[in-house]
Amino acid sequence: MTQILERLRDLVGDAGLIADPQDAASYTIDWRRRYFGKALAVVKPASTAEVAAVVKLCAETRTAVVPQGGNTSLCGGATPDGSGGQIVLNLSRLNRVRAVDPVNNTITVEAGCVLANLQQAAADADRLFPLSLAAEGSCEIGGNLSTNAGGTAVLRYGNARDLVLGLEVVLPDGQIWDGLRGLRKDNTGYDLKQLFVGAEGTLGIITAAVLKLYPRPRVRTTALVALESPGHALQLLSHIQNACGDRLTGFELMSAFCLALVARHFPATRLPFAQAYPQYVLLELSDTASGENLDAALQVALADAAERGLVLDAAVAQSEAQAEALWALRENIPDAQVSEGKQIKHDVSVPISRIAEYITLTDAELQRAFPGVRLVTFGHLGDGNLHYNIAAPAGADEDAFVARAAEVSRVVHDSAARFGGSISAEHGLGQYKRDAILRYKSPLEMELMRKIKVALDPQGIMNPGKVL
Amino acid sequence: MTQILERLRDLVGDAGLIADPQDAASYTIDWRRRYFGKALAVVKPASTAEVAAVVKLCAETRTAVVPQGGNTSLCGGATPDGSGGQIVLNLSRLNRVRAVDPVNNTITVEAGCVLANLQQAAADADRLFPLSLAAEGSCEIGGNLSTNAGGTAVLRYGNARDLVLGLEVVLPDGQIWDGLRGLRKDNTGYDLKQLFVGAEGTLGIITAAVLKLYPRPRVRTTALVALESPGHALQLLSHIQNACGDRLTGFELMSAFCLALVARHFPATRLPFAQAYPQYVLLELSDTASGENLDAALQVALADAAERGLVLDAAVAQSEAQAEALWALRENIPDAQVSEGKQIKHDVSVPISRIAEYITLTDAELQRAFPGVRLVTFGHLGDGNLHYNIAAPAGADEDAFVARAAEVSRVVHDSAARFGGSISAEHGLGQYKRDAILRYKSPLEMELMRKIKVALDPQGIMNPGKVL
Repeated sequence: MTQILERLRDLVGDAGLIADPQDAASYTIDWRRRYFGKALAVVKPASTAEVAAVVKLCAETRTAVVPQGGNTSLCGGATPDGSGGQIVLNLSRLNRVRAVDPVNNTITVEAGCVLANLQQAAADADRLFPLSLAAEGSCEIGGNLSTNAGGTAVLRYGNARDLVLGLEVVLPDGQIWDGLRGLRKDNTGYDLKQLFVGAEGTLGIITAAVLKLYPRPRVRTTALVALESPGHALQLLSHIQNACGDRLTGFELMSAFCLALVARHFPATRLPFAQAYPQYVLLELSDTASGENLDAALQVALADAAERGLVLDAAVAQSEAQAEALWALRENIPDAQVSEGKQIKHDVSVPISRIAEYITLTDAELQRAFPGVRLVTFGHLGDGNLHYNIAAPAGADEDAFVARAAEVSRVVHDSAARFGGSISAEHGLGQYKRDAILRYKSPLEMELMRKIKVALDPQGIMNPGKVL
Repeated sequence: MTQILERLRDLVGDAGLIADPQDAASYTIDWRRRYFGKALAVVKPASTAEVAAVVKLCAETRTAVVPQGGNTSLCGGATPDGSGGQIVLNLSRLNRVRAVDPVNNTITVEAGCVLANLQQAAADADRLFPLSLAAEGSCEIGGNLSTNAGGTAVLRYGNARDLVLGLEVVLPDGQIWDGLRGLRKDNTGYDLKQLFVGAEGTLGIITAAVLKLYPRPRVRTTALVALESPGHALQLLSHIQNACGDRLTGFELMSAFCLALVARHFPATRLPFAQAYPQYVLLELSDTASGENLDAALQVALADAAERGLVLDAAVAQSEAQAEALWALRENIPDAQVSEGKQIKHDVSVPISRIAEYITLTDAELQRAFPGVRLVTFGHLGDGNLHYNIAAPAGADEDAFVARAAEVSRVVHDSAARFGGSISAEHGLGQYKRDAILRYKSPLEMELMRKIKVALDPQGIMNPGKVL
């Protein structure tokens, strides 16, 4: 053991090694404080060559490697187990922007680059890197790619996977695969980069990537719309897509209870409506052509929707400050939930066309099984993705309720499966849903995954205990 | 042998089996008539279950399977070898549209669905299926997916891979993997469908797919622009993208020699300019919002480009007929080449930002090595993809020139590699480029591909001799 530590120190230097358990604590506990792991060491290499050398040593000594970026996984995907025999390989020191090519619309970055810094580097070149999510100030692009992150811009720009042109990966034997191509088209064999995106570090370690950039939106308009039901929201989605096409870049559903929580825990909150409504949609249009009058287009589309009975009320932001205030309603939901108390959280997706029916049936089933539960339902309706979170009935014993999480989640997940949905739309499996997935994926699909795992990581040293 | 034939007949019936070599000829010769194979039989199953039964029998008897759709591969990817021991498994009878969901923006189709029919089924539901390419009247979607087809709409909508949400695949042991999900987000393990897209049938047989649909463009405008050089075309691309963003759905480069060939072999051709220019770009804008005045936006952008010296002349189509006439210039290039005589063809890509430099340097290198060669350079400039084709010097012995194809291609491909490019941007490897790729891909990358192949097809019965 000590010998491995010394050899690791030789490879990465004192600045790259944290062996003291107390110093290592922030790397061995997950974001939601659900997993408390223990590491042989936290290793922080400063270059791809150092990552390769560390992994080579681990392969030689059969030491398990837990790759980690900003440590913001919501599923314990980057937390070591409790054995103290695994190393955490943290990529935060590999944080350079290697190149920006505005004509090719690409940026080449290292895995440890914080997402917000990457967005800024793109903006500095007058381009957009569209991936955007709540943790963007601390999450790192290597983790975003390894978990195929989603976020608020998926409707228009796709998931993290869709933004990747090339990867550099350290393989489980310590070899470096240089797949850093910046090509829009390349049909010369298997698209290997796809294997590593979304694999949660179980097949290798992404150390750098070539990512797509886009023209920056020049105009933007944001609105809060009040509606009767998720079914009306679904019809509104089709209506706006038909009227405005690709300009629709955000379409977030929030139940009345979500906004009530935000109002309660963020006293500065001002809702633009005098009365409460059952459901709300926050929608955003944007356009890369500066001459566009998006406000006018949206007003026309919303008036038309109101005539059809889809919309109860609507407020279009008249300034950037108003737009930010509307977005704050959506963005403050997670923190409002925390202030309110414990919830049982889910991250499900279903085909978009079935989302209203999914909510109706699942709500009813939960009320039957757990009368009085409070549903904090919000999410990326335009992607068919809901954060379907559940709080204890008002006045009930919260801890007793949360102790029944497995039963509650079973109802939510079984229902998603019946609708052809997924139990993890954007957060991944990590260790949190590793067992649950066995109920929903066919044995054949699990077998295919295991074949890939064994083919690339025959020793099983890459992030064991995650995904598979 | 006879016994296998009888067992195949039991599985698919008389209507599903072609054993007579003469009847089988159209299935055993490739589109470009470069490969003349021989098949044990051509098998045409009518259902996924029949495909599975056939593959199971082949696995049991270690009979090689060559999957085939519309047999339009440009690389011999769907042609059996000359041994007479392989079966061609043609998917053309699996041609149903299983479902259309306009709210989810998805269509579920079987592999044998002809691309044009699929486009029509989407249009019938007032949606766009954007994949579009020259062979669309005969190619089939299973082949399009297996080769990750490109075409003329990649700039805006991506390659075939980007249009897939779910797959149904018959695996090399005859098991059916049902991955027919219609979800925009699903992060529950490895994204297995990515393995089969672009694998050219070497890992399994795609039998059905869930594909993305889009709102239909309501307005469109097309222009032919004359320019000094590919470098000016590149600047124009950035200029139009900045001005018009996503509305730019086509940006095709054509050299003067390309249009001269079209004018010579299609006597009805009328160019909109009184004089000839060195280079041309065919560009198309489209918008899903019907109120958009795209003509005006394009006129402004082109006038601005002319002021900056990027554009020598421009003609914006004033009617649908004029737009079609402009597109015909581009679409008639391949046939004009055929009428002109033999060429040595290439399908390269480089980073978009380097495409002008690539053309200049490669042109010069070819002229040094093969003085007088005529360059039929055209392609999807907006994707960094060129069909960089080469005809013999005027008056030279064509057959003698074509006999030197390997030398000529070496120059073109080596140059692409120096620019970080690909030797097959959209056509795949098939058998045609199977050896050439070994020069350009690292041994490590080939080894990773082989590991995947062995993991999924340990007997090596799926389309042997292709890709790997």
